[in-house]
Amino acid sequence: MQNNMPLNSQSRAPLRQLYRSSLSLLTDLYQLTMAYSYWKSGLADQQAVFHLFFRKIPFANDFAIATGLEAVVDYLAGFHFSEEDVAYLATLTGNDGQTLFEPGFLDYLQQLKLDCDVLAVPEGTVVFPHEPLLRVQGSLLQCQLLETPLLNLINFPTLIATKSARICAAAGDEPVLEFGLRRAQGIDGGATASRAAYIGGCAATSNVLAGQLHGVPVRGTHAHSWVMSFDDELESFIRYAEAMPNNCIFLVDTYDTLEGVKKAIIAGQQLRESGHEMIGIRLDSGDMADLSISARKLLDDAGFPQAKIVASSDLDEYKIKALKAQGAQIQIWGVGTRLATAYEQPALGGVYKLAAIQDENKQWKFRVKRSNDSIKVSNPGILQVYRFQQDNIWLGDVLVNELDKPQLSHIQWQNFGEQNLQIMPVGAQGQALLQPVMHTGKIVYQKPTLPEIQAYAKQQRLAFQQQQTKKPYPVGLETNLLKLKQKLMQTNN
Amino acid sequence: MQNNMPLNSQSRAPLRQLYRSSLSLLTDLYQLTMAYSYWKSGLADQQAVFHLFFRKIPFANDFAIATGLEAVVDYLAGFHFSEEDVAYLATLTGNDGQTLFEPGFLDYLQQLKLDCDVLAVPEGTVVFPHEPLLRVQGSLLQCQLLETPLLNLINFPTLIATKSARICAAAGDEPVLEFGLRRAQGIDGGATASRAAYIGGCAATSNVLAGQLHGVPVRGTHAHSWVMSFDDELESFIRYAEAMPNNCIFLVDTYDTLEGVKKAIIAGQQLRESGHEMIGIRLDSGDMADLSISARKLLDDAGFPQAKIVASSDLDEYKIKALKAQGAQIQIWGVGTRLATAYEQPALGGVYKLAAIQDENKQWKFRVKRSNDSIKVSNPGILQVYRFQQDNIWLGDVLVNELDKPQLSHIQWQNFGEQNLQIMPVGAQGQALLQPVMHTGKIVYQKPTLPEIQAYAKQQRLAFQQQQTKKPYPVGLETNLLKLKQKLMQTNN
Repeated sequence: MQNNMPLNSQSRAPLRQLYRSSLSLLTDLYQLTMAYSYWKSGLADQQAVFHLFFRKIPFANDFAIATGLEAVVDYLAGFHFSEEDVAYLATLTGNDGQTLFEPGFLDYLQQLKLDCDVLAVPEGTVVFPHEPLLRVQGSLLQCQLLETPLLNLINFPTLIATKSARICAAAGDEPVLEFGLRRAQGIDGGATASRAAYIGGCAATSNVLAGQLHGVPVRGTHAHSWVMSFDDELESFIRYAEAMPNNCIFLVDTYDTLEGVKKAIIAGQQLRESGHEMIGIRLDSGDMADLSISARKLLDDAGFPQAKIVASSDLDEYKIKALKAQGAQIQIWGVGTRLATAYEQPALGGVYKLAAIQDENKQWKFRVKRSNDSIKVSNPGILQVYRFQQDNIWLGDVLVNELDKPQLSHIQWQNFGEQNLQIMPVGAQGQALLQPVMHTGKIVYQKPTLPEIQAYAKQQRLAFQQQQTKKPYPVGLETNLLKLKQKLMQTNN
Repeated sequence: MQNNMPLNSQSRAPLRQLYRSSLSLLTDLYQLTMAYSYWKSGLADQQAVFHLFFRKIPFANDFAIATGLEAVVDYLAGFHFSEEDVAYLATLTGNDGQTLFEPGFLDYLQQLKLDCDVLAVPEGTVVFPHEPLLRVQGSLLQCQLLETPLLNLINFPTLIATKSARICAAAGDEPVLEFGLRRAQGIDGGATASRAAYIGGCAATSNVLAGQLHGVPVRGTHAHSWVMSFDDELESFIRYAEAMPNNCIFLVDTYDTLEGVKKAIIAGQQLRESGHEMIGIRLDSGDMADLSISARKLLDDAGFPQAKIVASSDLDEYKIKALKAQGAQIQIWGVGTRLATAYEQPALGGVYKLAAIQDENKQWKFRVKRSNDSIKVSNPGILQVYRFQQDNIWLGDVLVNELDKPQLSHIQWQNFGEQNLQIMPVGAQGQALLQPVMHTGKIVYQKPTLPEIQAYAKQQRLAFQQQQTKKPYPVGLETNLLKLKQKLMQTNN
């Protein structure tokens, strides 16, 4: 087995090294040992097609929201092996103590430029199981090197955007703020979650880095420690309002919540005299339904009907629904850990499967990964996903092998969940979900802005939620693709 | 409310921007608005003490393993606000559309150099609820700016190292490999998890970036796609063995597992003829107990008793125990998603609380955050943790207010879980857990190497597991500290 080169720990500063220009080592070692073995066997340039997809929607939701493409584009655009990368790889050894990789291979890696094709579903698209979110077509070696980073960069944000959509749906028209950084899984675990949460519908984040990097709107006022740093709670509110009159949400539960509300009102009155309005108050503990109702009354009676009540405290879609059912008077929802880590189910099981490979005569051979569990059998082909709609009603999504060039106007298909062949009604329009991102190694994708992505995701959710009657939403295979799959499932490898 | 400056999305490449030298914006906005308000109120330099601790051990484990200090040290050493950071902050606005921060404050931030003191429990230390893992003493402003990043950098790796220790305990003497990158929460979600998993006891990771950055040993051979890229499974094994003879673990479940084992044996025999030994085979699906028993017999009968059987497939400590109980013949455990995301409980609820603040006469005033839930009341003081032992038996950990200078040889204390005052036996030795990391802004901590940290963590776990009889392990407050806390809990403010 290979070992790492002993490193001088004092000279390492991983945090500051990370996110330098080269991230080619963001991969599982087996991608590199396979790449080496393809190279060594003369098979490195054999053309292949891989699809990235998930098999199960997280949180038993009706859909997921594809997210992460921006990072994928950046990753692909910057892909290269630096001198340091290959120097590290040169230190790895096998079970005989000899190096794993020949110098010729390391030279090859350092010269390597991607020349593959990548298609992807745009960020914010409502997606379903078995639908490729990405399709990579290129040399076996390149396809393999990209597997792990693409999964890492898509699985997590897609999970979080989907969770965010659920939480925002529970909050209805009321804004949700994402507060999860302190318990997020790593630095970009936080920043990526903030961006994905915004795409899923959140109004803003507390995470300043996500604001700077991704353009997510940021929000924040003060914590309990502000109050505790003064001898008196009222004084703390007044001093905060003097310092930052245009950003006052008073956190009222440091000692006694309703007493805190009364002090916030006094501070709010002083603030008003100076020509400013408080934004509101924040509750962070206790019986949020009761406290918010009492606080609302205090604020209204004191002439602050516009002051918002913000709630935060281990919230998620379930607690928000429960609080609303109890008549809670909450206008803004602060959601942290349970959103930024998708606490209920903290990983999306996206996979990346070989679906086609060229033989020596450049003929495509198709592949399925078989399994005793039929839902785990992958789909062969060079796939495109068509979303059919008529009069703005979504009818179903159909996976098609592009080599079959099927007539979209007369498409025959079979839903994953059913046995009968179906035909789309006359006039149904099929829209291709996978769009070109990289062509022969060049980025051909115009990134939308973050607000554009958020707006598109909202439009997608509305289209799905308002118009979809069948559950689960029908997703299936075009007839020829279905036959190909059935044939391959019976073939003895 | 403040808004972000509209950004040109085409010019942003967040992935490549991230982990540049400045990470000062890795924080919640309210840390900056509080910092501003302290600055504006003339209170920025008021000295304060904060402690970072958790209240509940994750996974109902008997202990947690403190991890993340290396990243904290790097963070503190590199802390500064860059020109770009303050330029971003200058764009933020309040509810009147005016900027949140005055230019004078932004200049102050750009000039800011940390001059605080930080103490921390070394990585790998077995720790318990209420024990400060970090203590920060410095200006209110600096303490506040560090809250979010310190929580982010400690919570997650401490969670993962603890999970890893549980999984490694279930595996007993057999090595555990961490395979979680593809479903990890972000890039450093993966790399940080790999490092923490190693500290908790894992033998290696599949994550090459974690190998390069952190020095974690890396492992990997091939995936199903390697097998599927050939027309024949046996050919795929033989070609792999030819290319990489010193790194052969054949993945045998692409088609029929036991048939796959037989082909691995043929490939292993050819490999042996060429002077190499296969390391083993890997099972990734099916009934692992049955399959491993049958595979073991096939391997032994064919003259490969040394070949290891590696298992991977949604494993965690519970599944490993169940497989062992079924007599599974597995020698190496590959654990992915459930380790790298701590799937069962994906966040540690560490908090950071104000415990003391100086008044205008430089006298310390102590603070507790009160709560109806007594376990949530924070501890006042400038705390140190002493771990008492006698004849290598751990007796208990006692939190002490350093200003009290108590006699460690006659320490009186009360366990959090009990009402009676206790006295340590004569001869018990108290060892201070918190060690200096930063002194007046200078790093004074010598980072151990990663293998040293892993060895120390193992020694700590053995010390705890072999010698501890009381459950839960006794952790308490020294008498004077207890009295101070009780007094503060009754104080009205």
